[in-house]
Amino acid sequence: MEASAPSKGIFDSANLEKREQVVALLQRAYWMEIETVMSYIAASVNLDGVRAQEIKESLAEDIEEELSHAKRFAERIKELYGVVPGSQEFAAEQSYLQPPEEQTDIVHVIRGVIHAETGAIEHYTRIVEETDGVDPVTQDMTIAILHDEQGHRRLFEGFLREYEFEGIA
Amino acid sequence: MEASAPSKGIFDSANLEKREQVVALLQRAYWMEIETVMSYIAASVNLDGVRAQEIKESLAEDIEEELSHAKRFAERIKELYGVVPGSQEFAAEQSYLQPPEEQTDIVHVIRGVIHAETGAIEHYTRIVEETDGVDPVTQDMTIAILHDEQGHRRLFEGFLREYEFEGIA
Amino acid sequence: MEASAPSKGIFDSANLEKREQVVALLQRAYWMEIETVMSYIAASVNLDGVRAQEIKESLAEDIEEELSHAKRFAERIKELYGVVPGSQEFAAEQSYLQPPEEQTDIVHVIRGVIHAETGAIEHYTRIVEETDGVDPVTQDMTIAILHDEQGHRRLFEGFLREYEFEGIA
Amino acid sequence: MEASAPSKGIFDSANLEKREQVVALLQRAYWMEIETVMSYIAASVNLDGVRAQEIKESLAEDIEEELSHAKRFAERIKELYGVVPGSQEFAAEQSYLQPPEEQTDIVHVIRGVIHAETGAIEHYTRIVEETDGVDPVTQDMTIAILHDEQGHRRLFEGFLREYEFEGIA
Amino acid sequence: MEASAPSKGIFDSANLEKREQVVALLQRAYWMEIETVMSYIAASVNLDGVRAQEIKESLAEDIEEELSHAKRFAERIKELYGVVPGSQEFAAEQSYLQPPEEQTDIVHVIRGVIHAETGAIEHYTRIVEETDGVDPVTQDMTIAILHDEQGHRRLFEGFLREYEFEGIA
Amino acid sequence: MEASAPSKGIFDSANLEKREQVVALLQRAYWMEIETVMSYIAASVNLDGVRAQEIKESLAEDIEEELSHAKRFAERIKELYGVVPGSQEFAAEQSYLQPPEEQTDIVHVIRGVIHAETGAIEHYTRIVEETDGVDPVTQDMTIAILHDEQGHRRLFEGFLREYEFEGIA
Amino acid sequence: MEASAPSKGIFDSANLEKREQVVALLQRAYWMEIETVMSYIAASVNLDGVRAQEIKESLAEDIEEELSHAKRFAERIKELYGVVPGSQEFAAEQSYLQPPEEQTDIVHVIRGVIHAETGAIEHYTRIVEETDGVDPVTQDMTIAILHDEQGHRRLFEGFLREYEFEGIA
Amino acid sequence: MEASAPSKGIFDSANLEKREQVVALLQRAYWMEIETVMSYIAASVNLDGVRAQEIKESLAEDIEEELSHAKRFAERIKELYGVVPGSQEFAAEQSYLQPPEEQTDIVHVIRGVIHAETGAIEHYTRIVEETDGVDPVTQDMTIAILHDEQGHRRLFEGFLREYEFEGIA
Amino acid sequence: MEASAPSKGIFDSANLEKREQVVALLQRAYWMEIETVMSYIAASVNLDGVRAQEIKESLAEDIEEELSHAKRFAERIKELYGVVPGSQEFAAEQSYLQPPEEQTDIVHVIRGVIHAETGAIEHYTRIVEETDGVDPVTQDMTIAILHDEQGHRRLFEGFLREYEFEGIA
Amino acid sequence: MEASAPSKGIFDSANLEKREQVVALLQRAYWMEIETVMSYIAASVNLDGVRAQEIKESLAEDIEEELSHAKRFAERIKELYGVVPGSQEFAAEQSYLQPPEEQTDIVHVIRGVIHAETGAIEHYTRIVEETDGVDPVTQDMTIAILHDEQGHRRLFEGFLREYEFEGIA
Amino acid sequence: MEASAPSKGIFDSANLEKREQVVALLQRAYWMEIETVMSYIAASVNLDGVRAQEIKESLAEDIEEELSHAKRFAERIKELYGVVPGSQEFAAEQSYLQPPEEQTDIVHVIRGVIHAETGAIEHYTRIVEETDGVDPVTQDMTIAILHDEQGHRRLFEGFLREYEFEGIA
Amino acid sequence: MEASAPSKGIFDSANLEKREQVVALLQRAYWMEIETVMSYIAASVNLDGVRAQEIKESLAEDIEEELSHAKRFAERIKELYGVVPGSQEFAAEQSYLQPPEEQTDIVHVIRGVIHAETGAIEHYTRIVEETDGVDPVTQDMTIAILHDEQGHRRLFEGFLREYEFEGIA
Repeated sequence: MEASAPSKGIFDSANLEKREQVVALLQRAYWMEIETVMSYIAASVNLDGVRAQEIKESLAEDIEEELSHAKRFAERIKELYGVVPGSQEFAAEQSYLQPPEEQTDIVHVIRGVIHAETGAIEHYTRIVEETDGVDPVTQDMTIAILHDEQGHRRLFEGFLREYEFEGIA
Repeated sequence: MEASAPSKGIFDSANLEKREQVVALLQRAYWMEIETVMSYIAASVNLDGVRAQEIKESLAEDIEEELSHAKRFAERIKELYGVVPGSQEFAAEQSYLQPPEEQTDIVHVIRGVIHAETGAIEHYTRIVEETDGVDPVTQDMTIAILHDEQGHRRLFEGFLREYEFEGIA
Repeated sequence: MEASAPSKGIFDSANLEKREQVVALLQRAYWMEIETVMSYIAASVNLDGVRAQEIKESLAEDIEEELSHAKRFAERIKELYGVVPGSQEFAAEQSYLQPPEEQTDIVHVIRGVIHAETGAIEHYTRIVEETDGVDPVTQDMTIAILHDEQGHRRLFEGFLREYEFEGIA
Repeated sequence: MEASAPSKGIFDSANLEKREQVVALLQRAYWMEIETVMSYIAASVNLDGVRAQEIKESLAEDIEEELSHAKRFAERIKELYGVVPGSQEFAAEQSYLQPPEEQTDIVHVIRGVIHAETGAIEHYTRIVEETDGVDPVTQDMTIAILHDEQGHRRLFEGFLREYEFEGIA
Repeated sequence: MEASAPSKGIFDSANLEKREQVVALLQRAYWMEIETVMSYIAASVNLDGVRAQEIKESLAEDIEEELSHAKRFAERIKELYGVVPGSQEFAAEQSYLQPPEEQTDIVHVIRGVIHAETGAIEHYTRIVEETDGVDPVTQDMTIAILHDEQGHRRLFEGFLREYEFEGIA
Repeated sequence: MEASAPSKGIFDSANLEKREQVVALLQRAYWMEIETVMSYIAASVNLDGVRAQEIKESLAEDIEEELSHAKRFAERIKELYGVVPGSQEFAAEQSYLQPPEEQTDIVHVIRGVIHAETGAIEHYTRIVEETDGVDPVTQDMTIAILHDEQGHRRLFEGFLREYEFEGIA
Repeated sequence: MEASAPSKGIFDSANLEKREQVVALLQRAYWMEIETVMSYIAASVNLDGVRAQEIKESLAEDIEEELSHAKRFAERIKELYGVVPGSQEFAAEQSYLQPPEEQTDIVHVIRGVIHAETGAIEHYTRIVEETDGVDPVTQDMTIAILHDEQGHRRLFEGFLREYEFEGIA
Repeated sequence: MEASAPSKGIFDSANLEKREQVVALLQRAYWMEIETVMSYIAASVNLDGVRAQEIKESLAEDIEEELSHAKRFAERIKELYGVVPGSQEFAAEQSYLQPPEEQTDIVHVIRGVIHAETGAIEHYTRIVEETDGVDPVTQDMTIAILHDEQGHRRLFEGFLREYEFEGIA
Repeated sequence: MEASAPSKGIFDSANLEKREQVVALLQRAYWMEIETVMSYIAASVNLDGVRAQEIKESLAEDIEEELSHAKRFAERIKELYGVVPGSQEFAAEQSYLQPPEEQTDIVHVIRGVIHAETGAIEHYTRIVEETDGVDPVTQDMTIAILHDEQGHRRLFEGFLREYEFEGIA
Repeated sequence: MEASAPSKGIFDSANLEKREQVVALLQRAYWMEIETVMSYIAASVNLDGVRAQEIKESLAEDIEEELSHAKRFAERIKELYGVVPGSQEFAAEQSYLQPPEEQTDIVHVIRGVIHAETGAIEHYTRIVEETDGVDPVTQDMTIAILHDEQGHRRLFEGFLREYEFEGIA
Repeated sequence: MEASAPSKGIFDSANLEKREQVVALLQRAYWMEIETVMSYIAASVNLDGVRAQEIKESLAEDIEEELSHAKRFAERIKELYGVVPGSQEFAAEQSYLQPPEEQTDIVHVIRGVIHAETGAIEHYTRIVEETDGVDPVTQDMTIAILHDEQGHRRLFEGFLREYEFEGIA
Repeated sequence: MEASAPSKGIFDSANLEKREQVVALLQRAYWMEIETVMSYIAASVNLDGVRAQEIKESLAEDIEEELSHAKRFAERIKELYGVVPGSQEFAAEQSYLQPPEEQTDIVHVIRGVIHAETGAIEHYTRIVEETDGVDPVTQDMTIAILHDEQGHRRLFEGFLREYEFEGIA
């Protein structure tokens, strides 16, 4: 069972342009996770109320998870010979997740989380598609993270439904 | 032993202006820690080399610690009736901790860490002074964080000395 | 690197029928795991004998694993906007895994387990095929579960071979 | 202090009929717990909403507890020389715990849980009475499980009261 | 660097009266914590309802924390050569935290907790002021406990705001 | 094997008066445990001496145990539809366990503990008798607690014997 | 709700003879457990063979359990004012559990274990009956131990059945 | 939703030749991991020096990881009805990872590790390609292992760069 | 470096008599440990008093240790092709460690423990001497156990000295 | 909120002399802790007797604590740019804690411990005073250690009182 | 007590030849353990059958143990200034432990294990003898490993006896 | 198999002089370990630099190990009826391990550690020789400690070689 010309996959010189494209996609994913960490810290501390408590605890747990996502994206960038960007390249995008006027405005936060997760799901879906057949390692890692985000979004959609049902949202 | 007019400390209406000033100082401290988290993730992944490995592991451990500092500042802001700011208020300041040209340039990172820690030490020293006698809780919490930062800086100063000794830095 | 029309994957409205099909497949997988939990509890308690002890311990450990499979299928159903079915929709299928006449009849149980695992392997293989390219998250989760079931079947096939070798089975 | 004719308790041949009756009661208890496991998995995944989250977490924890009840009933059946029944003997009884029309209908689930627990409490109370004086081991084990169920029911009755108070239930 | 006349701090005979005053303040603090333990046990068990569940769990966790506060005050009394008082010296003060008429009356409990925490915060603030410069150990220990109480109060004020917002409280 | 009229045990309306009587007994048991917590904290801190150290450690461990007894009585009161009483209903009874004149007076404390445990044993024995045949759950729980108290008393009786032997007590 | 003449249960002077009888029963139970420890150590080490391995592991785990039974009986003897007997009062009774001629003779050991467990079950059943209504603490503790022994016996009866089935036993 | 002719995937008789090919590829992967274990043990013990310490610790940790890779390949061979080869079939290939002349020659070891990891990456990339669409379980397992090896290689490439930068390598 | 006639050590047929002698010595050691377990259980439960508490706790911890010694002797007997003796071969020797008249007679127990440990030390010293040069494995294991016993004896000699000092012993 | 001239606290060049003075005080504190470690090891091993056992265990636990104090003083010396002194600078001061004539002379050790703790308390009180307002980090760390030492002294004063009460000390 | 000419033991220049001889013996021991690791991985995965399961689990546990033996031999080689050999020096010797024709042929594996363990026991016995009096550290370490191997062999001899008894082996 | 005149080993009165000699050797060993603790604390804190970090971490871990060596020597002194010496008997010997002029002078520390370990190895080798045949317990314990020290020395010799190779040392 001798290999003729061993396959190098994504590291093959023929795949250079593709690898740089994947790195760029991963850098964007990295910043999405970092911003989510910021937004969730703020929301998990700012909100007031008994029902908010459930949301706050849920977000507080997610901080660790999102940070670990960020680290995994960062390590993959490195493995693909890219550079993890510095803080000056950060640009906030989650206008919908800034602290609300009233800290009891839970619906504002729930909507913001759904918005953010939807953005992540779409971007990660694209990474999965772009890496198909050329970089199975990035693809497999991204699918696992994608699963986490789909679960988060579904949970917060459920939260929203209660408020819609009560006629508040 | 009944108290005549019970002391309310920092929550006393007479201390309103002071409390708002403390909140502002804490918000700045919060952003310093958040940016440090970003910078340390990037550096702990980007650097190359055997000696860099020691630095990378040191920074990787600090990420958790700095994040917990950020959370404690955030919670104190809330306790003082302030609002933890959202991601759009973030403005990068650590120009000296952006990824270097060469990922083997350890001295660049060491100098950047010392720079960042010195900034934090000076700001937290000011918080300790400003809260003296009016908000012992904020003061006590900040002293503990200040101790961590002093220890980090001293460690990296030691790292720098080796390179200076070898004539590299 | 902005995306023109972001891909929504399985959540795309164009994929509605496919998603409903996947939900139906997952509901069936859910019931297969639930029935296996029942069958393994019964077998892990009913069997008598020293050699049976090995089987019993193996099955008792699997109960937790199969239950966790059931939960993961249930959660995925929810994420895909389906509903986890109630107990009235349960219909037993594992006629080959009912308690034997003699509780020392280990071969009966071994054969039943192989039968059940084969059914699961075929059904999960189909899910893997149906989700290929449209729902990588369901596919990836199912592959992991499929691996567990292939391992179980192989183990019990080995058990069976000993009895066949001894002329008992 | 030698015993004249040693007491064999429930294993005495004179108690054969009683033992078979106890086994039948335990088999019914076994199925009640198994069905509860199914119902709680479904409810703990299906429900939507912030308040539902509290219910879901409570039920998710109970799944493990109810499964361990089922196992203990199964083992006791075996110790009394009975046979744990197979999946084909399962017949659903909890019509009141099927998934509701709307997944935000928490009151439906709360009422269902109270209904199910009440059934279990009455059946286990009967086991306690039937085994009194003849099978203290079964009795003691069942009292402990009965305590768990009384606690669950009381908790959900409290949940219901809130909704009644708000005029929703 | 020999000390001329070594400082004994709070143990100096010149500080005898001050030490006795501090002991008296600590004894009062001790009873406040003990009564809080009683009140929180009752409330954490008595309340009914889904939203109450969040409050109950929060209070149940606090029981351990408040008990440890009581122990630390007791040990400090001993270290300052005072005597921890016996149960006959207990006199209830938290009239506002007695069980409400209706066990679904969450607002009653929330208001009671805020009332109790406010009393503790004012008393501990006084201890911090009285010990300033003469007994830094008592001061430091009390600041840490004061931080806990400020955090609790802030949390329950947030709970109250939700009900005020809904027009219930 | 269907039950004609299912037994509701202690929850049967025919047992209403009995249930109220049991609740009253449990409320008294609850206060006994709470007062014991207070007395043991004080004694475990106040006593002086090497031999006292053994007593202090023993009592310090018991604090957690007695507190958990109190919680279990409280939860059972709730399950029986009673209300856990508030701090204003507390009335000290353990005059024999107040701090002694001399904090080295170990015998005073040992006698006090035996006195308190004897009171608890007699009261819990009564609960066991009163609940016999009507509320096996309360009975079973109380027997377990009773066992703990019998063990404590026996231990302290042994302590006392040493002092009697030495002619001190 | 004051008690007229408080019940002392088994410690009542009227129950002195009964208490001494219970102590004697417990001392016998204590020796049964101690001898079982000896027999199980020997058997768990002496046996040879693959199938024996299952038995050896089962017995090796039971050593800890049986030793803990012995300790609980010993402590209960003490609580009832009896004395745990010394090694000179030990007299071997398990002639059927002595090491077999051949260390591969598993059936000999299985039969011996069943014999020993049956003896224990009958003796503990008697303790349960003798303590009924007068010493619920001893009764409750013994029922729990009795459950363990019934489970052990059932397991080894299952082992025996396999060998009977194969025509070896 | 019944399946017409259930898919058997890699176990389908039509896929026999493919399965044998996969087994052969896995056997080679197995030996690569086993040899790596040998090479890393030797290197992790033999190297001398402060900087070597970092390498040694990194390799020492990898031993466990590589051994677990070997076990997973072995188990997969079994699941595909192959046989894990015996020690006589081992043939060393890592001539570049034999102990260097001087035990301070770190660069020799770094280069050897990169060489070995590159071989593994190419071979595992081929397995991923060969199993695509026919054996998703083997593919998924191999992608996870491939990720580990890519990470190792990237780390050691970074080590090499430092030495190249210093002009040593 | 090939061996001419490989050394079999204690398993050499020339060493048969020696091996049987070692087995006999180990069997005696085994019984000494078993009897010590009995004596320590009894003493650790029977003794009364505060100072006794220290002794009781010390002995209670030793029970586990002595039992593990017994198991290690038993396993070594097996490894040397001997048989662990059954309970009928047990003969009590520790007449000096039977329960004293008065359960406060600590000196009796201390003297008994010293007596027992001295016997063990002398016997194990002999094993160490007998196995020197022929069975290093038994020797090494016995030295480790001998160390434990020397430590125990020294501790109890210290206990005795206090009582001698006080003129009680 | 920009700072005019940022405060550097103890690191300010204007505070150089003060910093050197603090370093000298910390070096002395460091040696006090190191000598205490030596004295406590010796005492925790040398003492004989049952009551001594309580003292020995207390000291054995303190060894770890005192060592950690020493390390914290050492690290603070480093952070303030001082040098931790070498073993040749050690000079014994605890003449009162040398091993007594008789190893049962507990009172000698108790008095020695009180003497040593008093010295530490006075020295650390001075550090707290000297650092007030200029080095809050050293102050805060020293207050925490001071608390530990106050607690130790109080405990041993209690031990001494028992002996005084008995007329031995 | 000054030493005249300090003993350097095995590191003495006079012992150079002996040290090299010991290193050679250790290198051979190292390879024996490495090959055993390979053989046990293969056997623990390849075997089929219920009884084989016991063997497989036993071998699977031993893999970790044998690997740790190999590491300890490797580290000792280094400490004695030898070099741990590379993979090219490996030569398989365990022809008797290659995978059997039939994977249900347990007796083949059992015999192979006994063969391998016997070889190890003889070689390690020689190391113990060769190092006697000159290198006690190597001797002590090897005795501990020798004990493990004697235990393994004895266990598998017991397994073999069962099969001989049944007339299969 | 009764012993005529039981061997007392090192405790035999005929071995008194030898025992006192062993105690003296152990006292010296005790002080060597204590001084090493001091030296390693200082070095682990004082050193500066990235490579120093590896050394510092290595020494910081060793502090615990060396302290445990000291404790074991102390306990053995006690078991042999000696007295652990007090702090006034300490005399520093490690002139070669005092803090260097420059805190980046790693080679100074490495040489000092090798020097100290060599002294310990020679002294412990002597203890092993002196105790041969008369005190196997001390011998066995010392061999284990000797192994640790040989390993440390070898590690630091490796560190030194790197610097020699680079021409720095």
